[in-house]
Amino acid sequence: MTKLYIGNKNYSSWSMRPWVLMKQAGIPFDEVVLRFDSFDAGSQFKDAIGALNPVAKVPVLVDGGLVIWDTLAIAEYLAETHPDKKLWPQAAADRARARSICAEMHSGFGGLRGHCGMNIEASLPEVGARLLREQPEVKSDLERIVQMWGDLLAQHGGPMLFGGFTIADAYFAPVGTRIKTYGLPVPAAITAYIERVQALPGVKAWIDDALAEKDFLAFEEPYRSGR
Amino acid sequence: MTKLYIGNKNYSSWSMRPWVLMKQAGIPFDEVVLRFDSFDAGSQFKDAIGALNPVAKVPVLVDGGLVIWDTLAIAEYLAETHPDKKLWPQAAADRARARSICAEMHSGFGGLRGHCGMNIEASLPEVGARLLREQPEVKSDLERIVQMWGDLLAQHGGPMLFGGFTIADAYFAPVGTRIKTYGLPVPAAITAYIERVQALPGVKAWIDDALAEKDFLAFEEPYRSGR
Repeated sequence: MTKLYIGNKNYSSWSMRPWVLMKQAGIPFDEVVLRFDSFDAGSQFKDAIGALNPVAKVPVLVDGGLVIWDTLAIAEYLAETHPDKKLWPQAAADRARARSICAEMHSGFGGLRGHCGMNIEASLPEVGARLLREQPEVKSDLERIVQMWGDLLAQHGGPMLFGGFTIADAYFAPVGTRIKTYGLPVPAAITAYIERVQALPGVKAWIDDALAEKDFLAFEEPYRSGR
Repeated sequence: MTKLYIGNKNYSSWSMRPWVLMKQAGIPFDEVVLRFDSFDAGSQFKDAIGALNPVAKVPVLVDGGLVIWDTLAIAEYLAETHPDKKLWPQAAADRARARSICAEMHSGFGGLRGHCGMNIEASLPEVGARLLREQPEVKSDLERIVQMWGDLLAQHGGPMLFGGFTIADAYFAPVGTRIKTYGLPVPAAITAYIERVQALPGVKAWIDDALAEKDFLAFEEPYRSGR
């Protein structure tokens, strides 16, 4: 069976993307959770994942003899091997747009990623309010998300960014959890989209698992000293 | 005709990737060079590219009414629309590996990208030697490149990473120019691969254009005060 190696569900936003994609699309896989102990060389996590792939990061998909790392490569591989699941939008123009925004997420949104680390279990609205005041990058990243999602929802009429569920929704699911954790203010249509995504069985399953983890990793927690 | 919007050829490594891909594969396009004046809001560059796409970065591919940004989305779009060009490796396992390393480049190699900005025209071996001593990230990025390319060249027997020319070679072409500019020491097999890539007509055409540019942008030049 295909294996997906992931990190802590509460913290690992990159792991979340292919996991919810496969779960929601109904592609069977076994998950292997490698708990983050630290990201230093010699940590249990780095040793375990480094044995699998040279980048030593999660997620990694192992399918038979094939080891595929990085969320975008995993998404393309799954789209190719499961054409019936329609993981990308079917219209060429929509597919090109979906790939553009996923690639944008893949290398961008440094403000949100750097300052608003995923932390599904936490509620940090006062931190979010402060970050919006003090970090222009957080503000501009949020504005870009609101514009992107708002345009796509208006264009396709929802419920997901391109109508039905696609890789793009999986790709931005961890941004929705950040907006919620940090209480970042967004228009009602955006809140409603986040809620629809989080109600998808594949996404809800991840969030439920994250809430059940009860793990506190100090190096993932710049804003709390405990739970 | 398809239009590719790019920045300065001497400096813009992200622009280089789709340009050499299309040129080398023989996909016709018109280039539109948007000279970098600055990356601040209100600069000529940001105004021009921001009118085209919300991310306001190059490269951007415009094909009819379709606007595609980001190198990976452009590469996937071209692979899809030009199946005869075999832009990705043909074997599924090779294609998955090629996508993994391109995605790795897309979001990684922060040491090389941050400290060894592309500067085709310059020769900065003393800077390279210092960076290798002082910046562990530059050293580990270089080691990873040597391992990645060495493994793939050994596995496929060259001349390119996956045998014939693919997106992966276009994707790493700017890394080859950096290794040369900064005089970074690599094994002979790696140097020979870089030279083969730079001798490809599509890559050579870019390098020749870059050398002919004669533009000095101080904000792209942390190590020189003039030419």
